[in-house]
Amino acid sequence: MKYSKFNFEITFRAPSSKARLGKLSTPHGVVETPAFIFCATKAAIKGATPEEMWREKTQIILSNTYHLMLQPGAELVAKMGGLHKFMGWNGPMLTDSGGFQIFSLGHGSVAEEVKGRRQSTRPKSLLTITEEGATFKSYLDGKTHILSPEKSIQVQRDLGADLIVVLDECTPFHVDKSYTEKSMHMSHRWAERSLKEFQRGDTGVQALYGITQGGVYPDLRRISADFVNNQPFFGHAVGGSLGADKAQMAEVVQMAMEPLDPSRPVHLLGIGGISDIFYGVTQGIDTFDCVHPTRLARHGGALTPPSVWEQLEENPKGREHMNLRNARFRDDPRPIDETCGCHTCQTLSRGYLHHLLKSGELLAMNALTTHNVHFMNRLLASIRKAIDTGSLREEKIKWIV
Amino acid sequence: MKYSKFNFEITFRAPSSKARLGKLSTPHGVVETPAFIFCATKAAIKGATPEEMWREKTQIILSNTYHLMLQPGAELVAKMGGLHKFMGWNGPMLTDSGGFQIFSLGHGSVAEEVKGRRQSTRPKSLLTITEEGATFKSYLDGKTHILSPEKSIQVQRDLGADLIVVLDECTPFHVDKSYTEKSMHMSHRWAERSLKEFQRGDTGVQALYGITQGGVYPDLRRISADFVNNQPFFGHAVGGSLGADKAQMAEVVQMAMEPLDPSRPVHLLGIGGISDIFYGVTQGIDTFDCVHPTRLARHGGALTPPSVWEQLEENPKGREHMNLRNARFRDDPRPIDETCGCHTCQTLSRGYLHHLLKSGELLAMNALTTHNVHFMNRLLASIRKAIDTGSLREEKIKWIV
Repeated sequence: MKYSKFNFEITFRAPSSKARLGKLSTPHGVVETPAFIFCATKAAIKGATPEEMWREKTQIILSNTYHLMLQPGAELVAKMGGLHKFMGWNGPMLTDSGGFQIFSLGHGSVAEEVKGRRQSTRPKSLLTITEEGATFKSYLDGKTHILSPEKSIQVQRDLGADLIVVLDECTPFHVDKSYTEKSMHMSHRWAERSLKEFQRGDTGVQALYGITQGGVYPDLRRISADFVNNQPFFGHAVGGSLGADKAQMAEVVQMAMEPLDPSRPVHLLGIGGISDIFYGVTQGIDTFDCVHPTRLARHGGALTPPSVWEQLEENPKGREHMNLRNARFRDDPRPIDETCGCHTCQTLSRGYLHHLLKSGELLAMNALTTHNVHFMNRLLASIRKAIDTGSLREEKIKWIV
Repeated sequence: MKYSKFNFEITFRAPSSKARLGKLSTPHGVVETPAFIFCATKAAIKGATPEEMWREKTQIILSNTYHLMLQPGAELVAKMGGLHKFMGWNGPMLTDSGGFQIFSLGHGSVAEEVKGRRQSTRPKSLLTITEEGATFKSYLDGKTHILSPEKSIQVQRDLGADLIVVLDECTPFHVDKSYTEKSMHMSHRWAERSLKEFQRGDTGVQALYGITQGGVYPDLRRISADFVNNQPFFGHAVGGSLGADKAQMAEVVQMAMEPLDPSRPVHLLGIGGISDIFYGVTQGIDTFDCVHPTRLARHGGALTPPSVWEQLEENPKGREHMNLRNARFRDDPRPIDETCGCHTCQTLSRGYLHHLLKSGELLAMNALTTHNVHFMNRLLASIRKAIDTGSLREEKIKWIV
């Protein structure tokens, strides 16, 4: 397991934080880090084509193992030549382990906890968790499936993304330290089984990420970091509970990152708020993912920097997107953001986007999705430049009101 | 009214039919005819961006006056710089008069009659038709509006398409000759009022089409053709009842075309089936429009030539599209049509499109819409070439099983 077709080169380390610049090389191209990973959940970005993702300077996307193993099935994707060929995306790709959806459908998600949304009205589809793996019911037809560490690797091998992730138990909310510790050790054993299955089938075209556990407990975070550091993972993801709110998340990310091997790339799972990204990079996080930019677009929201809000509002505090459904934009001939280089801002007005939303036209989703994709890629490019020039603090106030 | 920014040059006349090749020049570019006009009903093609329409070789699109006068309103479109700028389409455009929707909501449509669908469950929104114009209720909020010939021209002037059309009464089904004749004369008076309003505001950037009436009656068709031939229209559209079925439509199109001034471009309103297009061009029709190609795509249907069906079915008779939802395509690695040069057929498989449809992904609509747009443009390009080489009959059997 030499990951000879992969490389993570750290090209610059900030002198006053753990922020760094890197080049993450995969068989499908190089990702300049820090980078944002967009969610193509079911092997398609909702609202944008692969060509539009490239045009708006996307480096890497991910798909979800949970959804794809149920529809169309991993074997079918393998038969069709793997995810890249299947969906026509020739750049770097990541798949997750499938665990997040299974456990979040059972317990509610880590992201929901961090964001203060703890209630879920969805039926619980997680049936049991044992040493063997997780048993769950398909969201499509109610059939029972088992996801074991080995099965997750097999499915991800069939899917064929460049970067793949071990199965872990996403620990439920508000469990005590004893549960967290036991869960961590089981996730470590699952990681060892994942590695073994990965090595068994390794042909050099995929690289495996381990996940660091330990919840909100510093001593457990250290034990888990020691564990993953000593396993032959290509990269790490920060997993386990990140706490009850944004303040605690910052603390937990710091304690999780502190003991991690700094030579490996680190992914922060499911987190992609603008301030979270600024914080994460100072802790050494290299990649982020979140459905927010593309989901927001489908609801009529366009991400905008403070410069836009300063023109629109007396008190722009806390604004980060405009709802184009708002009647104030009805006859507004300006683009969403005059400083944005995306295709939507180059060609379409707020007034037209408002009309498309009022009329229920599909084009509204496409125009806003590609804008939000460009926004995130522009944000991360600005962050990379600011790390290079030592101006991350100054850069942050250009993006957060 | 010299239409000095417009021109219709007939570059070739077929020796054995009325088929001809032309160049229809507008301030936004030249349309090679015969051509298909795609429907961007509410100032957006459903399922494709303007860039994708160009990429798939679209020459001209249309928008509907009825929809746009209600949302966002013609004055707003004018304030935003007109339709071309509003929607980011820099090619030739046509708008209809708005009458078709008003009358078809009142009576049921001509196309439905031809296609044998005469029942409508929609509430009748047409209130009255008088010499002044038509009074109707908005489909959005139930408010009462009046569409007069003058108002239609004013609205179309605000919208700013290159080619615009006079308001006519779309005569209801199965009326007697006396009603048809009275209606024709009223439509002629409306056409004169339309011309007067057009001349009053003419700045040279729009060209006006008249509509020939007369239903299924040869003598009325001749009277109506004489009328429009003697008015300073740039082009003509074939209007009025086209009969009760496809066979009668062919007869009526022939009798309508026979006496029309052959130097002007002729549009056949709302008709765009493959066999109808082959027939229409032999009668001298220059442009066609229909929602079918883009609507079919949104329901999972891809237009395909007989060569595709000959591979799939023992008896391919009558097939013209494949429903990608069909389970037979689940693991089919082939493109929709190996002979098609569209972006979808170059990059995506039937299996992937089936997966997108099963998963409810927006991308399915985009991939199938752009394919169907390319198909229609490729069909019309083949027809133009076949007119040039005198092989229209041979060409037809490549497109219709």
